[in-house]
Amino acid sequence: MPPINRDYNSRCRCAQLESRIIPPDNLRSIKVVPEGPHCPETEIIAGLANGAKVCLNPRSSWVKRLVQFVLQKQKQV
Amino acid sequence: MPPINRDYNSRCRCAQLESRIIPPDNLRSIKVVPEGPHCPETEIIAGLANGAKVCLNPRSSWVKRLVQFVLQKQKQV
Repeated sequence: MPPINRDYNSRCRCAQLESRIIPPDNLRSIKVVPEGPHCPETEIIAGLANGAKVCLNPRSSWVKRLVQFVLQKQKQV
Repeated sequence: MPPINRDYNSRCRCAQLESRIIPPDNLRSIKVVPEGPHCPETEIIAGLANGAKVCLNPRSSWVKRLVQFVLQKQKQV
């Protein structure tokens, strides 16, 4: 049985998906929850600058690019 | 001034980085927090099956591959 806590509930967390593109400047975090026994869909939850959370479509190419952008954006050493 | 809440504090959240590889089966979520005024480093926080959270090195190639894997793993339609 999966642990129940605020980050891993026993059900899907996204009731609806935001289809509008999130500008990177407006993005504060992006959380990827793989599909599993709790939910048959991978879920992507974006935290916005205004504190809101929205669910993104993991199949959207712009969403995949957004994750890439965030990973690449960091300062290079 | 950035909003203060449990997901966007005014400081870095990772005190130390886990260097061991996380098997995908042990991963429940992965959160990417871009660098910003609150923290000069991109932070990647993995939620594990046992409920623990660990910080991963955003510069590690295996960490980038892990994020890719999770994004690609979903069922194709």
